[in-house]
Amino acid sequence: MKNPLKTIRETKPLVHHITNWVTIYDCANITRAFGALPVMAHAPEECADMTKISSALVLNIGTLTSEIIDSMLLSAAAANEKEIPVVLDAVGVGATKFRDEMAAKILGSVHVDIIKGNYSEIAKLAGENAETKGVEATSISADPEKVAKEFAKSSSSVIVMTGKEDIISDGKRTFVVKNGHELMGSIVGTGCMAASIIGSFAAVNPDYCDAARDALSYFGIAGELAAKNSKGPGSFKVNLYDEVFNLSDEKVKDMMKVEEK
Amino acid sequence: MKNPLKTIRETKPLVHHITNWVTIYDCANITRAFGALPVMAHAPEECADMTKISSALVLNIGTLTSEIIDSMLLSAAAANEKEIPVVLDAVGVGATKFRDEMAAKILGSVHVDIIKGNYSEIAKLAGENAETKGVEATSISADPEKVAKEFAKSSSSVIVMTGKEDIISDGKRTFVVKNGHELMGSIVGTGCMAASIIGSFAAVNPDYCDAARDALSYFGIAGELAAKNSKGPGSFKVNLYDEVFNLSDEKVKDMMKVEEK
Amino acid sequence: MKNPLKTIRETKPLVHHITNWVTIYDCANITRAFGALPVMAHAPEECADMTKISSALVLNIGTLTSEIIDSMLLSAAAANEKEIPVVLDAVGVGATKFRDEMAAKILGSVHVDIIKGNYSEIAKLAGENAETKGVEATSISADPEKVAKEFAKSSSSVIVMTGKEDIISDGKRTFVVKNGHELMGSIVGTGCMAASIIGSFAAVNPDYCDAARDALSYFGIAGELAAKNSKGPGSFKVNLYDEVFNLSDEKVKDMMKVEEK
Repeated sequence: MKNPLKTIRETKPLVHHITNWVTIYDCANITRAFGALPVMAHAPEECADMTKISSALVLNIGTLTSEIIDSMLLSAAAANEKEIPVVLDAVGVGATKFRDEMAAKILGSVHVDIIKGNYSEIAKLAGENAETKGVEATSISADPEKVAKEFAKSSSSVIVMTGKEDIISDGKRTFVVKNGHELMGSIVGTGCMAASIIGSFAAVNPDYCDAARDALSYFGIAGELAAKNSKGPGSFKVNLYDEVFNLSDEKVKDMMKVEEK
Repeated sequence: MKNPLKTIRETKPLVHHITNWVTIYDCANITRAFGALPVMAHAPEECADMTKISSALVLNIGTLTSEIIDSMLLSAAAANEKEIPVVLDAVGVGATKFRDEMAAKILGSVHVDIIKGNYSEIAKLAGENAETKGVEATSISADPEKVAKEFAKSSSSVIVMTGKEDIISDGKRTFVVKNGHELMGSIVGTGCMAASIIGSFAAVNPDYCDAARDALSYFGIAGELAAKNSKGPGSFKVNLYDEVFNLSDEKVKDMMKVEEK
Repeated sequence: MKNPLKTIRETKPLVHHITNWVTIYDCANITRAFGALPVMAHAPEECADMTKISSALVLNIGTLTSEIIDSMLLSAAAANEKEIPVVLDAVGVGATKFRDEMAAKILGSVHVDIIKGNYSEIAKLAGENAETKGVEATSISADPEKVAKEFAKSSSSVIVMTGKEDIISDGKRTFVVKNGHELMGSIVGTGCMAASIIGSFAAVNPDYCDAARDALSYFGIAGELAAKNSKGPGSFKVNLYDEVFNLSDEKVKDMMKVEEK
């Protein structure tokens, strides 16, 4: 897709989130800053109906409960039926048995088009030996690119592993995105925001691998631009929203650092 | 009322919210910035008790569940008995059947003094043909001023329709508030914040129609001032809080753009 | 402990929160800005497991429900067993009977190492005559230092009373921290953030009285520095995060205003 950001801003896709209570505001706000329309709705009585009028579904298990998982399943089934992309941000998988089980329940019950997590979360989901320190990645022994590629094949999903370098694979093509800035890790929520952005790009681009790659590259570039005049996480976050808002497909052209492996 | 902002700052009314999980922080923080005291409490065991020590109740169904609606009904009944204003922000009405039913349940069970929504949310509540794209307004066929006025009469409530121009009507008087800035729509939550501000103004002004009009005008003026030095939604939000904090009844005097129809 | 901030930044303790939905993001984000790792998890199926891999537990009853209290008890029991510090922020105690009962239930069921609240919340917990206006302190008749000291003795906990001056007592030693700036009270959440910071300092310092004193002094100093270039609550909050991020044990040395009584 040639101008994904312009397309988002022109079509304003509705991106339905069932997400965590920590970063829910930033998930909504970054979706808006990119030009899509966020909506959050988790009641079992309405969540599937909300998915039905949406163009993407973003699930984030950061503060999961069993009731929230049930709503996610209802919405994901509706998304599968409507053939809109489902993004799962597997926050904290590897930290507790419950998270592992609930993530497995989702992946076993519905089709997730894009599975996203940090290195240890994805490694854990892929069956590798990995633990997560709360919601923070720990080092993994396996080769991350290989993990992403193999897991993409076995799950028929696009796999997104975020870290200093982001890895995206659909099993055939594997991309490494090197955009971003370390200040992005100084604030809570950039990971969750990334899932919302991936959902927004996938809402307008049927090639979900390309959509995820573009989303992370564009977001990383905004982070690089924002860091220039930032003194710390406070000013960085302010600048990040301003830069996303003022981003364009033209502006990112010479700044994308993407390698195909 | 002559100096509503000064009155809020001197009396510091407690404004009880049962609201959504997306913008709950900004609802609290903007209430504080205007000089009132926010409190959020939704447990059925305490919500009515919290309302009883408050001066206004703000209900927002942005992330409603049936349990939250039950708590809203308990609190609204307590507010009705205490004769303090109840504000309902009908977020997302028109998007799902469940929202329509729950909004109808509230309006059928308790008296809501001020019903607020965007054009399509209010049109839907008023029985017009309208749909809402998630929580975003869509265009409506009916004349908005007429909708507000008629619905105010039939519901005995003050109706507040927010959009590029805000319409406020108690069935007899109808105001159009033209303050505000388009950057207010670039961040998530200004609609929810507006409901909190209306609650704060209504807490000190028994004329709820005037209170809603003043609240929206003052907030819009803060938005106009904030926009002057803003580069995007990040800096705009920072400036918005600073401008609200530094607002005064004197400062807004020559900036209010209010028409009575 | 000589360099508590450096220690936090080097050891990156995991600080498990079960907290309120209003300030949950800022609790997480300030924990991160100080260098610790926040994690929020409240599902009964996993909360104790998350506590078991953590170095401190922070409980905040700002938007309590009976289910959340049950999860707090599970996590606090796990924390007691693991002998990691439990911090309770008694938000709103004195405002409703339910809050009083639930706080009493926690204090009667598990050991809380650090009990934190504003003057009226702590006075109420200590059995004094006190009421809380929502979540805002009201004036109390008793001598606050004496209340803190006596309550520390009777509860075998460190007591933290926050206000214009913060009082910390373990029953033997009583400190008054005079750092801080009035703009800290202009935004919602600095009280909740303080509890997260206390948890982060207590995670690395077994002397919880010292940890609480240092936490409040460091945070207050960041507030003083942030206030210098702030025009209101918007810019203050941005600056506060930047200052915390750029704080060091060296920088605070000559700025600490702590008296031992």
